[in-house]
Amino acid sequence: MMFHPSSTQIKEQIVHWLKEDVGSGDVTTLSTIPEGHVSKGLIHAKQAGIACGMKIAQWVFEVVDATVSFEPLKADGDTVQQGDTLAIVEGSSRSILIGERLALNLLQRMSGIATRTHEYAQQVAGTAVRLVDTRKTTPGHRLLEKYAVQVGGGHNHRFGLYDAVMIKDNHIKAAGGIQQAVEQARAAIPHTMKIEVETENLAQVEQALAAGADIIMLDNMRHEEMRTAVSHIQAHSPHVVTEASGGVTLHTIAAIAACGVDVISVGRLTNDISPLDISLDLNEKKKGGRP
Amino acid sequence: MMFHPSSTQIKEQIVHWLKEDVGSGDVTTLSTIPEGHVSKGLIHAKQAGIACGMKIAQWVFEVVDATVSFEPLKADGDTVQQGDTLAIVEGSSRSILIGERLALNLLQRMSGIATRTHEYAQQVAGTAVRLVDTRKTTPGHRLLEKYAVQVGGGHNHRFGLYDAVMIKDNHIKAAGGIQQAVEQARAAIPHTMKIEVETENLAQVEQALAAGADIIMLDNMRHEEMRTAVSHIQAHSPHVVTEASGGVTLHTIAAIAACGVDVISVGRLTNDISPLDISLDLNEKKKGGRP
Amino acid sequence: MMFHPSSTQIKEQIVHWLKEDVGSGDVTTLSTIPEGHVSKGLIHAKQAGIACGMKIAQWVFEVVDATVSFEPLKADGDTVQQGDTLAIVEGSSRSILIGERLALNLLQRMSGIATRTHEYAQQVAGTAVRLVDTRKTTPGHRLLEKYAVQVGGGHNHRFGLYDAVMIKDNHIKAAGGIQQAVEQARAAIPHTMKIEVETENLAQVEQALAAGADIIMLDNMRHEEMRTAVSHIQAHSPHVVTEASGGVTLHTIAAIAACGVDVISVGRLTNDISPLDISLDLNEKKKGGRP
Amino acid sequence: MMFHPSSTQIKEQIVHWLKEDVGSGDVTTLSTIPEGHVSKGLIHAKQAGIACGMKIAQWVFEVVDATVSFEPLKADGDTVQQGDTLAIVEGSSRSILIGERLALNLLQRMSGIATRTHEYAQQVAGTAVRLVDTRKTTPGHRLLEKYAVQVGGGHNHRFGLYDAVMIKDNHIKAAGGIQQAVEQARAAIPHTMKIEVETENLAQVEQALAAGADIIMLDNMRHEEMRTAVSHIQAHSPHVVTEASGGVTLHTIAAIAACGVDVISVGRLTNDISPLDISLDLNEKKKGGRP
Amino acid sequence: MMFHPSSTQIKEQIVHWLKEDVGSGDVTTLSTIPEGHVSKGLIHAKQAGIACGMKIAQWVFEVVDATVSFEPLKADGDTVQQGDTLAIVEGSSRSILIGERLALNLLQRMSGIATRTHEYAQQVAGTAVRLVDTRKTTPGHRLLEKYAVQVGGGHNHRFGLYDAVMIKDNHIKAAGGIQQAVEQARAAIPHTMKIEVETENLAQVEQALAAGADIIMLDNMRHEEMRTAVSHIQAHSPHVVTEASGGVTLHTIAAIAACGVDVISVGRLTNDISPLDISLDLNEKKKGGRP
Amino acid sequence: MMFHPSSTQIKEQIVHWLKEDVGSGDVTTLSTIPEGHVSKGLIHAKQAGIACGMKIAQWVFEVVDATVSFEPLKADGDTVQQGDTLAIVEGSSRSILIGERLALNLLQRMSGIATRTHEYAQQVAGTAVRLVDTRKTTPGHRLLEKYAVQVGGGHNHRFGLYDAVMIKDNHIKAAGGIQQAVEQARAAIPHTMKIEVETENLAQVEQALAAGADIIMLDNMRHEEMRTAVSHIQAHSPHVVTEASGGVTLHTIAAIAACGVDVISVGRLTNDISPLDISLDLNEKKKGGRP
Repeated sequence: MMFHPSSTQIKEQIVHWLKEDVGSGDVTTLSTIPEGHVSKGLIHAKQAGIACGMKIAQWVFEVVDATVSFEPLKADGDTVQQGDTLAIVEGSSRSILIGERLALNLLQRMSGIATRTHEYAQQVAGTAVRLVDTRKTTPGHRLLEKYAVQVGGGHNHRFGLYDAVMIKDNHIKAAGGIQQAVEQARAAIPHTMKIEVETENLAQVEQALAAGADIIMLDNMRHEEMRTAVSHIQAHSPHVVTEASGGVTLHTIAAIAACGVDVISVGRLTNDISPLDISLDLNEKKKGGRP
Repeated sequence: MMFHPSSTQIKEQIVHWLKEDVGSGDVTTLSTIPEGHVSKGLIHAKQAGIACGMKIAQWVFEVVDATVSFEPLKADGDTVQQGDTLAIVEGSSRSILIGERLALNLLQRMSGIATRTHEYAQQVAGTAVRLVDTRKTTPGHRLLEKYAVQVGGGHNHRFGLYDAVMIKDNHIKAAGGIQQAVEQARAAIPHTMKIEVETENLAQVEQALAAGADIIMLDNMRHEEMRTAVSHIQAHSPHVVTEASGGVTLHTIAAIAACGVDVISVGRLTNDISPLDISLDLNEKKKGGRP
Repeated sequence: MMFHPSSTQIKEQIVHWLKEDVGSGDVTTLSTIPEGHVSKGLIHAKQAGIACGMKIAQWVFEVVDATVSFEPLKADGDTVQQGDTLAIVEGSSRSILIGERLALNLLQRMSGIATRTHEYAQQVAGTAVRLVDTRKTTPGHRLLEKYAVQVGGGHNHRFGLYDAVMIKDNHIKAAGGIQQAVEQARAAIPHTMKIEVETENLAQVEQALAAGADIIMLDNMRHEEMRTAVSHIQAHSPHVVTEASGGVTLHTIAAIAACGVDVISVGRLTNDISPLDISLDLNEKKKGGRP
Repeated sequence: MMFHPSSTQIKEQIVHWLKEDVGSGDVTTLSTIPEGHVSKGLIHAKQAGIACGMKIAQWVFEVVDATVSFEPLKADGDTVQQGDTLAIVEGSSRSILIGERLALNLLQRMSGIATRTHEYAQQVAGTAVRLVDTRKTTPGHRLLEKYAVQVGGGHNHRFGLYDAVMIKDNHIKAAGGIQQAVEQARAAIPHTMKIEVETENLAQVEQALAAGADIIMLDNMRHEEMRTAVSHIQAHSPHVVTEASGGVTLHTIAAIAACGVDVISVGRLTNDISPLDISLDLNEKKKGGRP
Repeated sequence: MMFHPSSTQIKEQIVHWLKEDVGSGDVTTLSTIPEGHVSKGLIHAKQAGIACGMKIAQWVFEVVDATVSFEPLKADGDTVQQGDTLAIVEGSSRSILIGERLALNLLQRMSGIATRTHEYAQQVAGTAVRLVDTRKTTPGHRLLEKYAVQVGGGHNHRFGLYDAVMIKDNHIKAAGGIQQAVEQARAAIPHTMKIEVETENLAQVEQALAAGADIIMLDNMRHEEMRTAVSHIQAHSPHVVTEASGGVTLHTIAAIAACGVDVISVGRLTNDISPLDISLDLNEKKKGGRP
Repeated sequence: MMFHPSSTQIKEQIVHWLKEDVGSGDVTTLSTIPEGHVSKGLIHAKQAGIACGMKIAQWVFEVVDATVSFEPLKADGDTVQQGDTLAIVEGSSRSILIGERLALNLLQRMSGIATRTHEYAQQVAGTAVRLVDTRKTTPGHRLLEKYAVQVGGGHNHRFGLYDAVMIKDNHIKAAGGIQQAVEQARAAIPHTMKIEVETENLAQVEQALAAGADIIMLDNMRHEEMRTAVSHIQAHSPHVVTEASGGVTLHTIAAIAACGVDVISVGRLTNDISPLDISLDLNEKKKGGRP
């Protein structure tokens, strides 16, 4: 089950993004392609990876021109090989060319995130650990990027500052200690919210446990310390969730998972985006209209 | 001279981006940090590179809370070393923590682009070639990313579909040839706009020249062919600009420049963003207010 | 500690609300009050209750005219008696009259909610029970109304559909049972979110407990059944939160609290708003300007 | 004849109101209800009253998902009994659950206003008096609430500060008297607008008449004084409209009407909203899709 | 007394209008004028007329850059001669050049309207007739244009479809007659609104009078017929306002006024805009900053 | 080939423009025309000219009510005679009346611009000169007005400050000369943009040529000087475009064209708009609905 962003939310953004690219008009297309000219375009993967963003690409063309058809041949989450066709776009050549760049920019970014997430997820496949993202997302793209993480086999951390408490160093200092910070938060927040505390050593873990944290983040701990922390937490409060964070790479993630944590958060899933190479090849279908 | 995006344009986006992160409220900060609590934060580079986005980061804090002060210690374009302090933020701890993530996300991305651009620019330093970006930018971030390219020592290609004509394969086919495409464009567009034609071989270069293109893109040509094309163009129409595109990497760019082109466009400058690692360390300044 | 809505969020709404009232212009004020005319207005309570919305009222006048001063004499949460002055507004008579109705409409509504919440909170004073609101808020006013509940001595339930899982009858049926619904939710949602299950009888309570719900709502249960449910839940899973809902009135709330639940949710706090009677009396200060 | 708010105006607000509730997504529904799952829901009145807002509720579901059908069984203005079905909603279970709360919040509020207005209107049934609302409406809901007043059998006072002149105490003082205030207004406003003057005693009534007011409001006058004022006005200027205001309750309105005024304005119609209890019962129709 | 549009309303539009002109940036100014460069500009009338829009022009520069000063030397409504200086603008040369075109476009249009209105108003000076505009305004500019009409010595007709009833031919036909149309309108609209009926002959005038219209428009009547109509209306209902419309030119308006009507409406005031020639001369003040 | 503004861009503006006119509702139409009443309207030209804006008018009715049909009988650019029917509108009488004024205001303005442009274009018919507009457009209407210029037989100058460099007097002074200004611009702008330099005499023409300007504007030059300048430019740099500007009237344009310039820019095309007289005649079709 994945939370696909709603069309209302995303289409509104697509309208703005199209304005950014099209501005007062696509002077090339409008001057060289006749109004009635129609084409058929194939969206190809030029690189292997995980497809993501098919619906979003479709919405781009829908926003540009509701009469353009978009037939997806791959679903989000499908593995694609170099050369695979992801989708067929058909309709007004003008509309397809006007939407092309935005659709590709989004497909490439989202598939890039899904592909990278998949690589990390592969490293912990078979374990019970949950690979999650962070708030290190591109401004304006959080819903799309968190969705792409799900598509790649990851899960999501909180969506923003509003849906869970995450007590860090500065909150602890200002509140006068972990105990006080957790108490103040618990008193103020809805009973429907969880409290996570970021800890850097076993002493802090102990305090977070005593304070009644729901989730304890083990930040940049050495693996041995992490293992000790996890055992301690599980022994005392089995319902508390443990999360490892910091310095997670493709090479270290399996060892971190082996420390027994429930969750591993990786900023790089959305912070360092390598696009999956995807292109659109347009073939004239039939000629119509006047230039 | 660089085109810094205007505060009106960017602050409007910052408002939206803050909503994405803060939503109904930062439940952690509001519950653990007293209203009057003030802090001083240092923004550090944890990695060497080119600083970019200082003004943007400042605007983030301004939008959150006009009373937060932001003192930049580095200017956009400055080389920074690991450990350098980029800026000092001072004021309400709540406001600093609420703006922190967005400010860092933007600084990291923009400095990442400037740093990468700088690496490419280094490779062609001393030549007359102009390194430029493409329209492969993150939707909603084009002005910021094109600015970061300038900061890194690059130049910009057109800003969108609206400010120059770029005739590609599909336009040529639909128009019935390069000659027709250029003619139709020339007839329709303002006399203040240039026309660029994308060519893949010498025959097309010949046609573009004959048609009166202002800029001729040499797309994915072998270096020898590129050299021939450049010589031919310079001999016949010295005011025509030549642009190399396709397959440009840190390893190939110097050789491409040596082919004599005026401009080299590189999608990867904005398409494949590795953030520069930048963090904010907050130190309690004095305690005030009530929890 | 209370979560005051941020000025950015609310001022944007104030701009829209003013447009609704002022439209193409306040024809009365503009035609009868000279531009330089200034006044001093006293905002009075004409009824006893709990003051709420002082900051919001201030922002209304700020949005209308930044030169109008607003001095609050009561803070949100203060008990006020009939005749008490809540605030002094001073400045351009035109601006005060243009903002008056909106400021009063908001103050009256918010103080009305705080006052009613206070009445309910009084009934459970001295117990550990937490009085909370629901999503039965006025569209467009959720942040203001949930804040007013806090001011009146209540707490907030979830802010929307996005920050906690609440599994009701229809979700259970569609998922194939409480067990399945909780499992599916747990698998899909961030590990930072809680799951609440709505139950109507002890059998469902049992299933919710077994499924690992974080919060169990006891909906419209008779008091005896509620007591049994609470005891059972506390015995088996002391960290699970219990919430009573349905048919809560000023007369029944104390008895419900006595059943031992942790939380009581009351739709009426925000669903049935009786305004606190508040008015603005304006006194000419000095005359200036031209008619 | 009633002025139903236009779909463009209201749907735009519905989009914002849905964002307030749904935010980054309905985590419960998306995780427990399969995408293809469809249901049929009945909207019931759990209390007798006047139905209002059927079209608005329909638009909520339309905005959420254009494929959800909404069949109204009651029209705005119809009397409903406890248990009556108001409408049938059919389609995607996800969409119905996502729109449910907003649709009900609006239906309950609008029907509550129509029901209360109807109670007041009943008290003056058979007389020529016109029962009207005021500007004491919920910010952002004026059009909906003024429409609900019409549905309940009332009429509307001016829509805002822009469509009629209403000269009150402060305008009179600033202008230097009733005569001057009316003259200045008449000189400045379009000839298409009326001028109402608020009076508190017979001397002011006299001045308003002399000044040529189109409407004279008798504010908080004793009934005898009001009768005298009305007779006087009718005798001298039969085309002048008289309006009673202040202290109007269900118990006093008939006596006020008997004073002969043309119009009675009642702030409580929209200022003190008791929702009509309305609920949506959803029944699984058939199961489809994947979880 | 004039209704100057509020800064909030207009500044919001100015932001949009600036985007239209400036788009992704003023490439000329940003590349040739150093950041710190300051200038002093004089806004001159190059043609005689009535000044209008001083405040609007000031707001344009304020929106571009709050540090630019704007000193008006003429007030709205002042007569200006060719060569007169209207205002002095001082500050950042970049900001002045960026705002220049928009400020001039608005000043020229508004002064053009005020000047033409003044010409018409001169023709009826000394009479009691009120010269008014129509709804034939430029989309998006109604408030500004109706304000310019006031500045030129005219008055305003209704502001839109929302603030007065104007019954025309099609409404009459659909309602089944003037009597029915007026009755239906009177029953539906607030008692604070007036009803105007458009008539084309004496028979219709008679019906409008009988129906109780507040304003009777005499549309395209011959002068003799108009005189008869006015006399008849004044004799029977002296408080009814008469309005002449249709075929009003600078040459006919005095004769129409002589027919005794209260109001003459002229579409051309806002429909056919000849700009007053106004320019900005910029003089370098001192040089600063870096290019 | 003409660049018709896209429906997305324009419909968004239409929504705002309709709000300006309709506000809280068309009180006349809603109270006198029954909901189901349908009509057929003919849009007539009451004056000869060039039709322009047919699609825009259609979109107005579409935005008001998607069920109204609009059949254009004339295309943009067609010559129309007095009395010609431009289009047939059919559907809900309420919707047609609500959209009427905005549709006509736009049609009249756009056809007015096309008609005037056509008059100018006629004067240079048969020559190679290109008649172009300026940035002296109505704020918020630039795309529509530049489109109307094309329809009338003209071409467009740059769309805004963002798509071409235009170096004027102040830029030259601030940069330290034409040479420096052009160099600085060339260094900063994308290689895809052209540079135009405004010159007032032959010395400046010489400098602009030397600096490598792409376009040289000859501003307010006497015809003899202009001829000399053109010959000189053509002799030295045949690819440089020459543009005449200033003091262009219907009487002088042919003589200016005879000077050999490539382009003539005329502010009056969009700066001084005389509407083409166009009206809508509505005929009742059949009666339905309830009043």
